[in-house]
Amino acid sequence: MLRVGIVGVSGYTGVELARILSRHPEVEISIATSRQFEGKHLGDVYPNLRGCLDITCENPAPAALADRADFFFTAVPHQTAMEIVPSLIAAGKKVVDLSADYRIRDLAVYEQWYQRHTSGELIGETVYGLSELYRDSIKNARLVANPGCYPTSVILGLAPLLREKLIDPSTIIVDAKSGASGAGRSANIATLFCEVADGFRAYKTGGTHRHIPEMEQELTVLADTPVTISFTPHLLPITRGILSTMYAKLTTDISREKVQALYEQNYGDEYFIRLCPGDTVPATQHVRGSNFCDIGISFDERAGRIIVFSAIDNIVKGAAGQAVQNMNLMNGFAEDTGLRGASLFP
Amino acid sequence: MLRVGIVGVSGYTGVELARILSRHPEVEISIATSRQFEGKHLGDVYPNLRGCLDITCENPAPAALADRADFFFTAVPHQTAMEIVPSLIAAGKKVVDLSADYRIRDLAVYEQWYQRHTSGELIGETVYGLSELYRDSIKNARLVANPGCYPTSVILGLAPLLREKLIDPSTIIVDAKSGASGAGRSANIATLFCEVADGFRAYKTGGTHRHIPEMEQELTVLADTPVTISFTPHLLPITRGILSTMYAKLTTDISREKVQALYEQNYGDEYFIRLCPGDTVPATQHVRGSNFCDIGISFDERAGRIIVFSAIDNIVKGAAGQAVQNMNLMNGFAEDTGLRGASLFP
Amino acid sequence: MLRVGIVGVSGYTGVELARILSRHPEVEISIATSRQFEGKHLGDVYPNLRGCLDITCENPAPAALADRADFFFTAVPHQTAMEIVPSLIAAGKKVVDLSADYRIRDLAVYEQWYQRHTSGELIGETVYGLSELYRDSIKNARLVANPGCYPTSVILGLAPLLREKLIDPSTIIVDAKSGASGAGRSANIATLFCEVADGFRAYKTGGTHRHIPEMEQELTVLADTPVTISFTPHLLPITRGILSTMYAKLTTDISREKVQALYEQNYGDEYFIRLCPGDTVPATQHVRGSNFCDIGISFDERAGRIIVFSAIDNIVKGAAGQAVQNMNLMNGFAEDTGLRGASLFP
Amino acid sequence: MLRVGIVGVSGYTGVELARILSRHPEVEISIATSRQFEGKHLGDVYPNLRGCLDITCENPAPAALADRADFFFTAVPHQTAMEIVPSLIAAGKKVVDLSADYRIRDLAVYEQWYQRHTSGELIGETVYGLSELYRDSIKNARLVANPGCYPTSVILGLAPLLREKLIDPSTIIVDAKSGASGAGRSANIATLFCEVADGFRAYKTGGTHRHIPEMEQELTVLADTPVTISFTPHLLPITRGILSTMYAKLTTDISREKVQALYEQNYGDEYFIRLCPGDTVPATQHVRGSNFCDIGISFDERAGRIIVFSAIDNIVKGAAGQAVQNMNLMNGFAEDTGLRGASLFP
Repeated sequence: MLRVGIVGVSGYTGVELARILSRHPEVEISIATSRQFEGKHLGDVYPNLRGCLDITCENPAPAALADRADFFFTAVPHQTAMEIVPSLIAAGKKVVDLSADYRIRDLAVYEQWYQRHTSGELIGETVYGLSELYRDSIKNARLVANPGCYPTSVILGLAPLLREKLIDPSTIIVDAKSGASGAGRSANIATLFCEVADGFRAYKTGGTHRHIPEMEQELTVLADTPVTISFTPHLLPITRGILSTMYAKLTTDISREKVQALYEQNYGDEYFIRLCPGDTVPATQHVRGSNFCDIGISFDERAGRIIVFSAIDNIVKGAAGQAVQNMNLMNGFAEDTGLRGASLFP
Repeated sequence: MLRVGIVGVSGYTGVELARILSRHPEVEISIATSRQFEGKHLGDVYPNLRGCLDITCENPAPAALADRADFFFTAVPHQTAMEIVPSLIAAGKKVVDLSADYRIRDLAVYEQWYQRHTSGELIGETVYGLSELYRDSIKNARLVANPGCYPTSVILGLAPLLREKLIDPSTIIVDAKSGASGAGRSANIATLFCEVADGFRAYKTGGTHRHIPEMEQELTVLADTPVTISFTPHLLPITRGILSTMYAKLTTDISREKVQALYEQNYGDEYFIRLCPGDTVPATQHVRGSNFCDIGISFDERAGRIIVFSAIDNIVKGAAGQAVQNMNLMNGFAEDTGLRGASLFP
Repeated sequence: MLRVGIVGVSGYTGVELARILSRHPEVEISIATSRQFEGKHLGDVYPNLRGCLDITCENPAPAALADRADFFFTAVPHQTAMEIVPSLIAAGKKVVDLSADYRIRDLAVYEQWYQRHTSGELIGETVYGLSELYRDSIKNARLVANPGCYPTSVILGLAPLLREKLIDPSTIIVDAKSGASGAGRSANIATLFCEVADGFRAYKTGGTHRHIPEMEQELTVLADTPVTISFTPHLLPITRGILSTMYAKLTTDISREKVQALYEQNYGDEYFIRLCPGDTVPATQHVRGSNFCDIGISFDERAGRIIVFSAIDNIVKGAAGQAVQNMNLMNGFAEDTGLRGASLFP
Repeated sequence: MLRVGIVGVSGYTGVELARILSRHPEVEISIATSRQFEGKHLGDVYPNLRGCLDITCENPAPAALADRADFFFTAVPHQTAMEIVPSLIAAGKKVVDLSADYRIRDLAVYEQWYQRHTSGELIGETVYGLSELYRDSIKNARLVANPGCYPTSVILGLAPLLREKLIDPSTIIVDAKSGASGAGRSANIATLFCEVADGFRAYKTGGTHRHIPEMEQELTVLADTPVTISFTPHLLPITRGILSTMYAKLTTDISREKVQALYEQNYGDEYFIRLCPGDTVPATQHVRGSNFCDIGISFDERAGRIIVFSAIDNIVKGAAGQAVQNMNLMNGFAEDTGLRGASLFP
């Protein structure tokens, strides 16, 4: 049994890690930390977990943390992550970091969008943890930067088109919509039930969302040419789920069938990517609670656009699920261990 | 008191007409028809109206209908509308038709997207009822074709940019999201609570939604050049509200402030159009139950796009409210009669 | 025009007062206070109000407040209210207080459930503002204590039965359910969208909710004998609305029809109380945004219980709407001024 | 591997059976029937299941059905069930019937609440499938009648109190609330998103819900004296979940702690029953997607009532999950096989 630690267990991502790991046959959670709930049983903080795991939140001194597990998930805010990760790596542990701190390979870009980086020396060896794209590197990594939720849906959705240079990168528009769990579990008027329910709006408009440099970095790798996207996130009155609607101009005269075949060729062996047949499109409620990314393709021939729809559960494939998928790869477990199972619908 | 008839009162649009007209000081509802609920009191079909109006649904013979009111709203499906409207016009009545039957000026286009038209002779005199754009013509019209819900939000959102030729029409992408009331009140598995709640998906993708020719007709008039848009509608788990997110490339180097000033110049005198100040954007929950169209503008300078957000309540400004606004214009009432009042939030 | 002040305009109740008063023909809002948003335009805090009223939040010194209006609504938390109300009364102003501070006639009971009272001398003259029950006294009052939301639904629901001694007061069970707006607009993890949506639970169980003494006080007056109820509130994943389901044993063998007739006799002239016909029962969505209280009666003959259902919008009839109804009574306006109009459905 | 058949796989209960069985290590689904979707892949009817199971809906002739599996779940409406079950039993198969047809032991009572029974001869041997109460009989049964959703929550909630005669059976009030999935997946105006969302109401009031005789039958067994309850169901704007709030008078002076201890003694060994500690109460969102029944107890000392709260997921513990639990018992599998795992929250 791999002894696993969750640093920051009391947020929505941390607790989802606990939920997934509680039914993972190869691991045991040997420590779970929370400053806010130190000493409390996790089942008292999240009654849905009661009876399913036996975890008491701890808050050990930083120096004492590394010994408590063989493998760590750091599910804390950016900037806090970089205070913790280096010492874990130095102690010889493997880490999947779920913050943004190690996702950006160009330090200058990171510091432009976030703040000063204090452990830039680790960036070079960090692997970007989009499991389907970096599988081999992830297997050998000490430190994996788990992708952001929006980037996961967007990069998986566009990868086949960019790799084959089928779309003009300068025409990419991403209109993305996320459920409220993406905002985390902190007290905030903007995410109160009465502010979100029965409503819909955009936020962080005008190309200001911090997931943009992360997406552009990976889309640029795939396209082998610099990619700039226009990205606009919206807040959905749902708990879990992201749907990204992506528009681009095709560079060549290709049929819908050939594009569908291309996606099947790229993703046919990927258990966690499901292609929608024919003219159907994905829905967030059909990936709820699962690690699937559902992708659908539509051709708008009148307007000369291809439209790709990509749906994930933002706290599973967009966070905790993909983190476990990466942990499986890093430890030689079957990649889907603890992650199989249909979405919960209705 | 103007005697007003509502043909098709039992759908969500019809009943919203009844709700709005029940507090309109210049009119009385002299007849309201419903095949399904003939003989029933409207307050028994919609208990929210109980005590607020005294209407019994009727189903008169077509020939007997015209005499029952001086002014008619036809809130029935397309194709049904064209069976009723001609006789009302022939009887000298004024009509606001809320179906799609008279919105398209080019009969061939109508018949391509819908079906054969049986009263094409009325198309020539019909005025497209986007009140803010066709105010003067509406005042003198006998027949007004009330715009579709999506077109209302999209055309109002883009009009200033197209008039001034500030955007490239070939780059327009419209990512639109609507609440479930847009699907009407018919029994349908796809709009059951359990299918829609806590979820999100696109529908009628690939440029197939029937509001497209209507939008392109009006955008073409505004741009004075043929406009083709890429339009993708999505279904929100909310009851009322449309948010359209519209992307385009600017044709000229203009500042955000100048664009904001242009919108203020275009819409500053319009009571029902509210411009979001600064970097703020509209939200459907802030127009719920009102006849407002809230518009916000965002510049994505990195990606070279202007993004316009337009929010309406789909059954008020997107249907019944705008219909009453048109009725006011056609009868010399103050344009906002019966339509003032803040949105309901929370 | 009556100059009206709203003390505490930035909570959900305060802003609903502003919304209702903005279309009231007899009043103008001469001051609206908010500590948190001092200097901000209310339309920037609540964009749904933009264009509908012109109010800037102020935070005047207590001594300067009274001069700013002729009539005041105090929509602040209990304990804060009693710091403000006495000086307004002393300055000769009329006040409707929406807190709990003046609802309980027995100071000892108030102090047992809340905390020490600092202006007990005003209790004697305060009128409990359940408009339908205390109409005449309200007309002559200087200070009206606006009822709590749950009490409004419960007292109106049970009044006819208790007055006629048709039910055994010792058997009353009230199972009440409220939307999340009842919790107010303060940042709180328990009322985040993700905690409330798609869920349901009870809270303040075991007879601990502070509305209990208020309900028992009024039910005791109606029954003319001490009444103790078992009251359990629940949190609904809706924004607005309370449904109270009330169970009791009949003391006599009376038919359902006679009870229905009794309610019609009691409430037939009340515009804001609507009795559900036959076997139908009220729904919160049918009172949303309106000042109505919908009441339905059911007989469970097998189990020997009468069940009364009472639905209100908790921030209209349960707070701001009833407060305006009381203001109308206190100033000789027609009781329904500014409050007519159907509920918003769907 | 046990070959299992699902008769009626396309309703919400049938598809939940498929979802649960798809990860059950001891069974394979050898046939799944649906009249409506004959020939369609289940993953096309329910895209959440795509990639997780390989089932094509069939509609075999009744005579050919029995051979297709060794064990059957009949998830069809009452009256349809009794047309299918007898032939399966006659063919030597074991059956869990999820309809109401075999739940009522007294044929006269069944026929009074439902309609004529055509296979009354099976009633005598049928075991009522509330797993925690009838475990030993279920193990040896050929035919198990899976309990209704409301009865599961109510009977489990009250059993300890009735067995110990701690409450007066004549005082039991059950105020129950269910999510919309309980209404099934048939096209119906009353369960459209727009009719249910942001609202709340009671239905089948006055002691008319057909789950009442089933509950009274089992409560009577537990109490060893005839029990009549007053039961009122309500419709919640959520997808999954039932919360039953149950009120009764204690017959003896007993402390809250002793009652809590009694529940722990009754249910301490039951994996699927979780007792809420201290003053906490259950929430439907904490059992979503799981087979748990969460129970909380509250004492209202002022009003002399004990209040029991019982929460389940209506289509798991209230239907498909409990059916699998019974299948496990009937086949010698560990009772929790395929059913472990925490609820999905948020």
